[in-house]
Amino acid sequence: MILTVTFNLALDITYHVDAFERGHTTRVKTVARRAGGKGVNVARVLHELGHDVVVTGLAGGHTGEAAHAELSDAGLRHELVDIDGQSRLTIVVVDSEGQATGFSEPGPLVTRDEWRAARDRFADLIRSASAVVLSGSLPPGVPADAYAHLIRAANDTQVPTLLDAEGDALGSGISARPPVVKINALELRATTGEQEIEAGARILRSEGADTVVITEGPAGLTYFGDEGVLRAASPKVLTGNPTGAGDAVSASLAAGIVGAVPWPERLADAAALSAAAVNAPQAGSFDSDVYERLKATIKAV
Amino acid sequence: MILTVTFNLALDITYHVDAFERGHTTRVKTVARRAGGKGVNVARVLHELGHDVVVTGLAGGHTGEAAHAELSDAGLRHELVDIDGQSRLTIVVVDSEGQATGFSEPGPLVTRDEWRAARDRFADLIRSASAVVLSGSLPPGVPADAYAHLIRAANDTQVPTLLDAEGDALGSGISARPPVVKINALELRATTGEQEIEAGARILRSEGADTVVITEGPAGLTYFGDEGVLRAASPKVLTGNPTGAGDAVSASLAAGIVGAVPWPERLADAAALSAAAVNAPQAGSFDSDVYERLKATIKAV
Repeated sequence: MILTVTFNLALDITYHVDAFERGHTTRVKTVARRAGGKGVNVARVLHELGHDVVVTGLAGGHTGEAAHAELSDAGLRHELVDIDGQSRLTIVVVDSEGQATGFSEPGPLVTRDEWRAARDRFADLIRSASAVVLSGSLPPGVPADAYAHLIRAANDTQVPTLLDAEGDALGSGISARPPVVKINALELRATTGEQEIEAGARILRSEGADTVVITEGPAGLTYFGDEGVLRAASPKVLTGNPTGAGDAVSASLAAGIVGAVPWPERLADAAALSAAAVNAPQAGSFDSDVYERLKATIKAV
Repeated sequence: MILTVTFNLALDITYHVDAFERGHTTRVKTVARRAGGKGVNVARVLHELGHDVVVTGLAGGHTGEAAHAELSDAGLRHELVDIDGQSRLTIVVVDSEGQATGFSEPGPLVTRDEWRAARDRFADLIRSASAVVLSGSLPPGVPADAYAHLIRAANDTQVPTLLDAEGDALGSGISARPPVVKINALELRATTGEQEIEAGARILRSEGADTVVITEGPAGLTYFGDEGVLRAASPKVLTGNPTGAGDAVSASLAAGIVGAVPWPERLADAAALSAAAVNAPQAGSFDSDVYERLKATIKAV
């Protein structure tokens, strides 16, 4: 089983409208609701790929209940710790020109006991996990070294982890020596202050990350690890919804960890799945035809 | 007790942001959630004025539960019929320049049994009501003559009604002879095809409305009834949030019905309360200082 951790779970709401105007009220044509947050998106992709996956993290309030219900409907196993606070909503308004305008609520305040309960739940779940994906922001009240705690617990039980975070959560997480860190180039620059991704990745590796994978949108992925430097990119730039493309990379890399797939293949697969995710309407989905086609063409070099 | 009916209850969510841009995601600074819909706003104003009020109508899903909880927190008595569908959300994004950009979801699908249960609940509640306010849109599945049914039931038990609706719900409601109809000038024009409000109001009266009150935003209110024509307006145009100003008019008129307040005073009070509602940040609230000051100045003529 692959375990994904989402401390700042959301209820993602997507509205389709013809157009909207500042200062006016628009009637929404269609409404879609689903559980969200990076870890949930990763779990959806893994589930669609046929992997056994469990979603853990924190959820609460009426939005948390709605997210629970939707995860069950989607057939995703969830082991979320209940919190008193209300899980955040994200609203995305897609207009007829395909422009997506988003509003993202701040996360709920998490108590010390709730955070401890999440740690304990993780400790239980890790025993039956073959890999763990830790991704996304931390809501207020969850300590900045939360990911570091979980990575140490996973290392102690020889379960490989993949970390996708930013800021302090990333920095302290890396110090706990996760086998794989996957972040985008913007986050890498913000964290290390280096403009060149090679220099930035070197810093993350020196601080404790075994392997670093950097995403650069349509420019593809770069691997920095024991096998040197590898690159993989989709030959064709696909237009669509880039939200969730990074989560598709995490999903592919986690699947690669579990299957002990050699890194060149693993990186090529991640590039294909990421491009196929851009081509799908919602984060956590991918276009399987595009994925199959690209998987046959993309090679890591 | 004054009963307010809200068939298309909402969970109103207000976001404060500095600014937002189409095609980008904005982090929301503050989030406010409360139950909404015209009848709920009317009930809030009546409650704040010290009246005994009960909210009835339909609510369902996680949004419906959140609305229930907020009504209880606000001290508003509610007798809502549960539905399987999910009550709609409305999102209002207020930017630093005070511009309010809204997104309004379509209402849930209501089954025939749910509608019958709402009618039965109304029939129970009407027995202890001294006035009823029927306001707002009807969700899919609620018949267009829903208000007509309720007005007839209220007439049969000699409980006065105030109707605030549009389209078919207004037209059929009027045929059931409600004592007071309150709509805005735009709705009057759309319903009757008349440009002059006098001519439009005459049509509504001929079709069954005893008294018609037309709102025209800052231009104030006009009464058409047995006492002829009366007008009342705030001497000063207040800037702020016009959403809910019409609901404050309905609240004031309902309070006037219960108190048997003479129409000139009733209309002046409604103009004062409406202007005080514009001056308050959220629909269902009013600025009590502004209300007291205007009440002492506005006269209906």
